Amino acid sequence: MDIGFIGLGHMGEAMARNLLKAGHRVTVYNRTRDKAEKLAAEGAAIADSPAGASHGEAVITMLANDEAVEAVVFGEEGVLAGLRRDAVHISMSTISVALSDRLDAAHAAAGQRYVAAPVLGRPEVAAAAKLFVLAAGPEAAIGRCQVLFDAMGQKTFVIGDKPSRANLVKLACNFLLASMLESLGEAFALVRKGGIEPQRFLEVVTGSMFSAPAYKTYGPIIAEERYEPAGFKMTLALKDIRLALAAADAEAVPMPAASLVRDHMLQGIAQGEGNSDWAGIARIVARNAGL
Amino acid sequence: MDIGFIGLGHMGEAMARNLLKAGHRVTVYNRTRDKAEKLAAEGAAIADSPAGASHGEAVITMLANDEAVEAVVFGEEGVLAGLRRDAVHISMSTISVALSDRLDAAHAAAGQRYVAAPVLGRPEVAAAAKLFVLAAGPEAAIGRCQVLFDAMGQKTFVIGDKPSRANLVKLACNFLLASMLESLGEAFALVRKGGIEPQRFLEVVTGSMFSAPAYKTYGPIIAEERYEPAGFKMTLALKDIRLALAAADAEAVPMPAASLVRDHMLQGIAQGEGNSDWAGIARIVARNAGL
Amino acid sequence: MDIGFIGLGHMGEAMARNLLKAGHRVTVYNRTRDKAEKLAAEGAAIADSPAGASHGEAVITMLANDEAVEAVVFGEEGVLAGLRRDAVHISMSTISVALSDRLDAAHAAAGQRYVAAPVLGRPEVAAAAKLFVLAAGPEAAIGRCQVLFDAMGQKTFVIGDKPSRANLVKLACNFLLASMLESLGEAFALVRKGGIEPQRFLEVVTGSMFSAPAYKTYGPIIAEERYEPAGFKMTLALKDIRLALAAADAEAVPMPAASLVRDHMLQGIAQGEGNSDWAGIARIVARNAGL
Amino acid sequence: MDIGFIGLGHMGEAMARNLLKAGHRVTVYNRTRDKAEKLAAEGAAIADSPAGASHGEAVITMLANDEAVEAVVFGEEGVLAGLRRDAVHISMSTISVALSDRLDAAHAAAGQRYVAAPVLGRPEVAAAAKLFVLAAGPEAAIGRCQVLFDAMGQKTFVIGDKPSRANLVKLACNFLLASMLESLGEAFALVRKGGIEPQRFLEVVTGSMFSAPAYKTYGPIIAEERYEPAGFKMTLALKDIRLALAAADAEAVPMPAASLVRDHMLQGIAQGEGNSDWAGIARIVARNAGL
Repeated sequence: MDIGFIGLGHMGEAMARNLLKAGHRVTVYNRTRDKAEKLAAEGAAIADSPAGASHGEAVITMLANDEAVEAVVFGEEGVLAGLRRDAVHISMSTISVALSDRLDAAHAAAGQRYVAAPVLGRPEVAAAAKLFVLAAGPEAAIGRCQVLFDAMGQKTFVIGDKPSRANLVKLACNFLLASMLESLGEAFALVRKGGIEPQRFLEVVTGSMFSAPAYKTYGPIIAEERYEPAGFKMTLALKDIRLALAAADAEAVPMPAASLVRDHMLQGIAQGEGNSDWAGIARIVARNAGL
Repeated sequence: MDIGFIGLGHMGEAMARNLLKAGHRVTVYNRTRDKAEKLAAEGAAIADSPAGASHGEAVITMLANDEAVEAVVFGEEGVLAGLRRDAVHISMSTISVALSDRLDAAHAAAGQRYVAAPVLGRPEVAAAAKLFVLAAGPEAAIGRCQVLFDAMGQKTFVIGDKPSRANLVKLACNFLLASMLESLGEAFALVRKGGIEPQRFLEVVTGSMFSAPAYKTYGPIIAEERYEPAGFKMTLALKDIRLALAAADAEAVPMPAASLVRDHMLQGIAQGEGNSDWAGIARIVARNAGL
Repeated sequence: MDIGFIGLGHMGEAMARNLLKAGHRVTVYNRTRDKAEKLAAEGAAIADSPAGASHGEAVITMLANDEAVEAVVFGEEGVLAGLRRDAVHISMSTISVALSDRLDAAHAAAGQRYVAAPVLGRPEVAAAAKLFVLAAGPEAAIGRCQVLFDAMGQKTFVIGDKPSRANLVKLACNFLLASMLESLGEAFALVRKGGIEPQRFLEVVTGSMFSAPAYKTYGPIIAEERYEPAGFKMTLALKDIRLALAAADAEAVPMPAASLVRDHMLQGIAQGEGNSDWAGIARIVARNAGL
Repeated sequence: MDIGFIGLGHMGEAMARNLLKAGHRVTVYNRTRDKAEKLAAEGAAIADSPAGASHGEAVITMLANDEAVEAVVFGEEGVLAGLRRDAVHISMSTISVALSDRLDAAHAAAGQRYVAAPVLGRPEVAAAAKLFVLAAGPEAAIGRCQVLFDAMGQKTFVIGDKPSRANLVKLACNFLLASMLESLGEAFALVRKGGIEPQRFLEVVTGSMFSAPAYKTYGPIIAEERYEPAGFKMTLALKDIRLALAAADAEAVPMPAASLVRDHMLQGIAQGEGNSDWAGIARIVARNAGL
């Protein structure tokens, strides 16, 4: 397919590369051009504006937050201006439910298609094309995007036809991960103060009831207290938890475990660990236990 | 081996049966005799007292709480009185760290061996001999017990040589499960109020980052709101969380996620759901969200 | 003084009336004109726009939320357009710290003065001219406003020269009240389930360590479960707690008690009690205890 | 009256002295005799055992915890053994509801009277005879004790005829104080990080809605961060919160604010501040905010 890709951070670069490898024609745009040039060497075309990357059948946005997506879509020379009728904007960033609803309305008004397709997975998972894609939007549009999802991920979950529902599920998943970090942090603090080797406890956890990727990825980080360098920074993770809490507020859903996670992340940032991995929640819990 | 088995509840009955199947000579004792008679039909001998079940090389206790274990061990005609020198008391119940330490000291004083070996798994897992055994105690004693653990479980994790450390790990694991239930409950409440089918969200959760037995067992219960009949009653689960919090208090470890779970369980009991499955924590969370 | 008053809700009407009584010339503006007419009968002039109410030495805004203040100040025919150089905008609404900072900058750019002066007190307190005024801004400007504050309140606390600091203190005070409601709710639930008459417990609380207006106002509401009609609606109170949490987020201050209050207010709204008094937090706590 | 007084800690010594000053004949007993001798110089008789201090019309116990009260009452040469029929045991310690119920039953079985009369107030308040007494028990017995209460306190609240209800109210009051400390801690952390002088915020709080002894006592301690020396140690305060949570557990009352306070106290103890004043909760909150 002839597509555009906007946003070449840790995740985006790996995803765009996998699209190139799968044989798609990819026009990339990034705010700072040097990242785009790296991919140009691997076959990508470079656009000078988001609109310039939106002339194909589809354009993917993979950006850090709501503000970045708003700028790229609604700005001058933005996606909305560049995308032709019936072409698809595939929004893969982790953004708010509210912004996703706004994008949906704006693209519909312009006769364009909009699919929300946030992903689960860290940069190394993106590099291995093993992401999980959470897709929502019109069935036909998702169908057309499937070949792209397959190039970037191991599995696509279709959430439904209302795009922002995929964003809501993504936020719910990030919340589940964050609260898992909190719980692991508390459990490790307890057993460590009880004189048990963290590695031994880790074996029990990941070798019995919790033998899942989430626990196998984060358990060792916590057992070995290896919070730097960050795979996913606490400041960015806090952004996601804020979005989850905002979505919960809009639906009148109390989420005390999310509140707890948020408070610990704020503590981490206040104590100078905003650039550490979000698994550092466990370090905060440990510190509060005097460890 | 020639062993005794005390406590034939849902878990104990299944475990004793697997020991019989594996060819061990098992003398059983239960406070209400009818449960013992059922196993007698399958080859077990019946004892009239805990001491009567403690004459072999080892005796296993699998009881509901600290009080029951104390009565059976320290009472007249109890395990302590019946067990011969060098024979092993294998305590598989979920009990407090403090009681485990007391049992350790009492058996040592009597020249007996003591191994703590609590298990992870629900009754159907016990029936399938697929329990996870968390064992701690003198290495030689654990070695002698291994053949018994193999008859009841799929894997034994050796925690160390201080018996009560296995109890601490067990409590930490039950806390991890309980806090998972809380988190799942919040996530499901959020997506349900957002109009997403629970089953679809479940597929994402168990099909991606959380493809572990714990999530595969409890996720469907929550998605289908199937809290009765209970596999593990909320009142009993609250007992375990109380023990975890008591252990954490003794070690000066704040565990706010455990406090949260405790408060929701108390709400469940106050609102008449103490006999429901502990996964009913998710129902309380949903109710608090107006569902 | 020759002043304007914008926003004639429960609070604003009472405050404007007291300014009239004190002999000031008051030009009022309200989105729905009928409320303005009521005060016209008592001597007020009526303006057709916020700008029209801003031609005097000072204009007071007393509105429900950030959005209303933004509309009235920045909108066409707004305060910013109507206020002359050196005249003062006295912002008495409970608004966000961020908006207060924006107002400060906008008025400075226009050569106007800006004082933030949110108040503590319910409508009946406003009617009795017994409000507490929290004022911040340039010393000279506050000095000119003092005669107005004296007409509406019993005491003015000068917080400093940066206006938004008064808003921060106001949010901190509302948080203290909300968390007091939570704590009272929990204490009353405990003693009620313990068979103690609420009235008797109330006497202890307000007759000993907690003999303060906050407890004497809200204690009886909780003891008598008198949550309707609302003096201050839960939906509005939640707005304030959101603002407090946003301010805390901006400063990286974890406020778990504020998170707790927020979660209980969301529960109240989810369970249909958004229009009840915010003291209804205690009813939610009681319900969670099975009362 | 001819009475005994057992337990001469910071509180007990001051209370016994006030009884002497009021003209009562007081026989004192303390585990370490030197404290008793100090009062002997002021007119007290010294007993060699709790029983020896229990020969009069009434005996007061004022001890640190359940264990101390149990030892003194049920031990050899204890209160139960020494008290004559119809004489009154006035239990003024902060003890568990469960122990108070046991004492009630034991004294009834012995034909003795039992009144629970825990107090509100710190040592300096006790010294000034300004305590608040929370009394429960048979009306006649309370009537006989009133003259004693008047010598020690400024006011007696009669809770009812079941003694342990006074203990429950006392625990509820201590919870209210602890959660006030938590809330003040959060509010002060917010305004301090916002650049507001603590003293200025304190004036607002205690000068407006919260002009009560509790806020006037603890507000300045927090504003000035004056947590040593302790008026009431955090380790002792945690004991009381544990008792409140145990009572709440027994009644199935979720108390999340109490859980929060408990977790922060555990953090304080884990971080080496168990001997600081319990107002140090605010220091923990501040530290978690990076202050």
